[in-house]
Amino acid sequence: MKKPFINFIFFLLLIFNCRLYASANGDTTGIIPYSKYINDNMPQHIQEFKEFVSIPSLSSLPANKKEVERCAEWLKEKLQAKGLLNAQVLATDGHPVVFAEWNKAKGKPTVLIYGHYDVQPVQEAMWNSLPFVPKEENGRIYGRGASDDKGGVVVAIWAIEAMLKKDGSLPVNIKFLFEGEEEIGSPHFTQFVTTHKDLLKADYAYSVDAFQKSDTEPEMVMSVRGAATMEFTLKTANRDLHSGVFGGKLPNAAQILSQLVATLHDADGKVAVEGFYDTVQPMTAEEKAMAAHAPYDEQKELQEYGATLFSGEKGYTSVERVWYRPTLDVTGMWSGYTAEEGFLNIVPGSAHCRIMCRLVANQQSDEIITQIKKHIATHLPEGVTITYKDLGGFANDAAKFSTSTDAFKAAFSVLTKLYGKEPLLMGTGGSNAAVGIMMKQLNLPMYSFGFLQEDENYHSHNEFMRISDLKKGQYAFCMLLKYIGEKK
Amino acid sequence: MKKPFINFIFFLLLIFNCRLYASANGDTTGIIPYSKYINDNMPQHIQEFKEFVSIPSLSSLPANKKEVERCAEWLKEKLQAKGLLNAQVLATDGHPVVFAEWNKAKGKPTVLIYGHYDVQPVQEAMWNSLPFVPKEENGRIYGRGASDDKGGVVVAIWAIEAMLKKDGSLPVNIKFLFEGEEEIGSPHFTQFVTTHKDLLKADYAYSVDAFQKSDTEPEMVMSVRGAATMEFTLKTANRDLHSGVFGGKLPNAAQILSQLVATLHDADGKVAVEGFYDTVQPMTAEEKAMAAHAPYDEQKELQEYGATLFSGEKGYTSVERVWYRPTLDVTGMWSGYTAEEGFLNIVPGSAHCRIMCRLVANQQSDEIITQIKKHIATHLPEGVTITYKDLGGFANDAAKFSTSTDAFKAAFSVLTKLYGKEPLLMGTGGSNAAVGIMMKQLNLPMYSFGFLQEDENYHSHNEFMRISDLKKGQYAFCMLLKYIGEKK
Repeated sequence: MKKPFINFIFFLLLIFNCRLYASANGDTTGIIPYSKYINDNMPQHIQEFKEFVSIPSLSSLPANKKEVERCAEWLKEKLQAKGLLNAQVLATDGHPVVFAEWNKAKGKPTVLIYGHYDVQPVQEAMWNSLPFVPKEENGRIYGRGASDDKGGVVVAIWAIEAMLKKDGSLPVNIKFLFEGEEEIGSPHFTQFVTTHKDLLKADYAYSVDAFQKSDTEPEMVMSVRGAATMEFTLKTANRDLHSGVFGGKLPNAAQILSQLVATLHDADGKVAVEGFYDTVQPMTAEEKAMAAHAPYDEQKELQEYGATLFSGEKGYTSVERVWYRPTLDVTGMWSGYTAEEGFLNIVPGSAHCRIMCRLVANQQSDEIITQIKKHIATHLPEGVTITYKDLGGFANDAAKFSTSTDAFKAAFSVLTKLYGKEPLLMGTGGSNAAVGIMMKQLNLPMYSFGFLQEDENYHSHNEFMRISDLKKGQYAFCMLLKYIGEKK
Repeated sequence: MKKPFINFIFFLLLIFNCRLYASANGDTTGIIPYSKYINDNMPQHIQEFKEFVSIPSLSSLPANKKEVERCAEWLKEKLQAKGLLNAQVLATDGHPVVFAEWNKAKGKPTVLIYGHYDVQPVQEAMWNSLPFVPKEENGRIYGRGASDDKGGVVVAIWAIEAMLKKDGSLPVNIKFLFEGEEEIGSPHFTQFVTTHKDLLKADYAYSVDAFQKSDTEPEMVMSVRGAATMEFTLKTANRDLHSGVFGGKLPNAAQILSQLVATLHDADGKVAVEGFYDTVQPMTAEEKAMAAHAPYDEQKELQEYGATLFSGEKGYTSVERVWYRPTLDVTGMWSGYTAEEGFLNIVPGSAHCRIMCRLVANQQSDEIITQIKKHIATHLPEGVTITYKDLGGFANDAAKFSTSTDAFKAAFSVLTKLYGKEPLLMGTGGSNAAVGIMMKQLNLPMYSFGFLQEDENYHSHNEFMRISDLKKGQYAFCMLLKYIGEKK
């Protein structure tokens, strides 16, 4: 073949290749200056990532306290090595927080990036490979925390590394805030935030503990619910008593608990605790539209979970109930003889109950707990004593995000460019302590900007992170910071 | 000293001794003909009793099936050796029944004596001595089953042995009926009774699985409650689900169970199941008087059991509630996360409940179960499935005894003579399957006539039988059979 023809074929292949690359990685967006660095460094970044994932930073296990601390130190050193400043491991009454910043973009806004370096416990027997010996397979890295949230953390750091290497500076100021207690409900995060308000001051904030819908569908979380939890025990006697001797005269603790629980909701599925809805904002038209637009197949979900019917508060769809309405759920309840087999002829002398509320803006978790305790006191019959158990943590406030902030617009625009389509705006029924705390204490909306995916077995066995998302996340952060830097 | 004087002193001592003896053993009652035999044979009877108690006839443990059978054989051979006729080990679909009779008192009534040779399980670690190595100490024999009901069984047999030895005959016809499944709710006793109606025909019937109030206070049980038990599971999903993702839209199984349980009673503490009280007889004036007369210190009991209040069905005293009114009690209930420690953010997809009713004459346990199932079906919301678990056994009918039968009069008269005071007439809130079955199937009231005492740790550790009661019981049975034989 003649050379010009071959050249032409190569040219066509190059174009085709670029299109493939662009469609896979969204690389049509002006991040080309960093993509070579990002790609060239993937092998060593993956090594670094495996090192990070191999540290068993299980925040819930007291025995792993040293490992959590080792992980924080590791992270601080990496941040320093990448060129970040003031890298610190900041003590709390629990596990430490890792902080670092880059503050030389004079006159430019400050972007705070939140993530967490602690991980969930493991049931090692259920894993196909050891959870703290990361394994690369089929374009994925398997290991505890690979997705939640160590994979979230590294992409933001590597993006900044790429920009600093390439440009010697950043288009904005950066603050990294990596928590070590996310998986245990962030019990010391409020305290940390309130005592470090200046340090955490920022114009924009994003959480990398966040998901995209799929490889091709972006999403942004526009609200998280808060949480309030409680546990109590009712007592009618100092032990369970023989039902022949006491049946009929001893108040039955199991029945009293049931009667009490039955008062917590009305016939329309509304929570019947006085004041519960006082601060709840009605859904806006925009929110209603968002819920209606959410991809959701109720029939499929019912089938998967062996349910015949979803129900709940009257007047709302399933999606609206989960995104925008507060709930009160008994999460556990036990009384009397509860062994799988057998039967005991007793009148239970005590009954136990755990309750979790999912809250929405502007409900306050402590106020809600007070209201429920008052409700219980009002409805408890004579002859019954109640004791509450302190659960620690699991008390978060809800947060709701506006679509009119610069932070929202920046993320929305970048995701739209990167994926070639607008992100789905999603509510979520779950809670995120840090998001609620940052909103409440600093009035700082922390938008989701993370590249994990829901199918990555976080909180379960065989957790993994997609290598393609480790790349895509870096592009996204480079684009985001450039976007913000250029805007102001 | 002169001989006449010494003789006089001896005479006085003899009188005094007799008085002591009489007051201790009630021996003023015409049983003198047997008392020498009874007393002389106590040492070897105690040996025999220890042999009986040493057989671990635990009916609830499948592993002990052979021991239960060995115990039945042992008992049959003893009955034969004592001169009883037609001694048999009669098979059932469970553990066997031991039967024997003495049927040569022509024209005289037949007295059926019921007891059981099976025993409760043991928690050996809690015993001071081995439960199946009987130990004599301080006038007591310790061992599992010593009181309940092997001690009950032997006194009746020994009494008949004494009468047969002394007189060569009995004043009445006797039928012994010793069950091997009392401690597991007599699951095959109805079947046994209905297929052996002729064999069990009798004019008088007494149960030796029965108590006296104390060493000096006799009692008779005038009613037992029946029992009906059930267990069910409610399901709203095939697993517990994340309360963030499902809280608000998934019906909460724990709450639905609570709401259901709350419908089972009304505000007055009455069972709200339709038809539940339809066959219940109102208290008679005699019964009300009996309850008022019962020795009962509510304050003391409240204190002992750490309760602040006894309550129950409106309009009845505590004693009346337990003796004469039916109940519906949740005996066990569990749903969701029930571990002692921790917290799980779930909406329970299932909830479990066990219920026990104590019934009174003429409620039928199977009808009551049907009524409750109907109530549940009516009150269960959409989207919930229910499955019932077969518990086997624990379905007994209540029985109530008349004070105008010859059998009552005989026992009442004998106890009055033996203790020097009239027996307390007591109801009981407990159930006794055999009593209910004999009443229902044979219309045969089986009066309590046993010499166990409530403090003997039956069903608990360090169970014991008083040697004095092993004697007193023999006197009582000799007196009873003579009384009955002379009356007709």
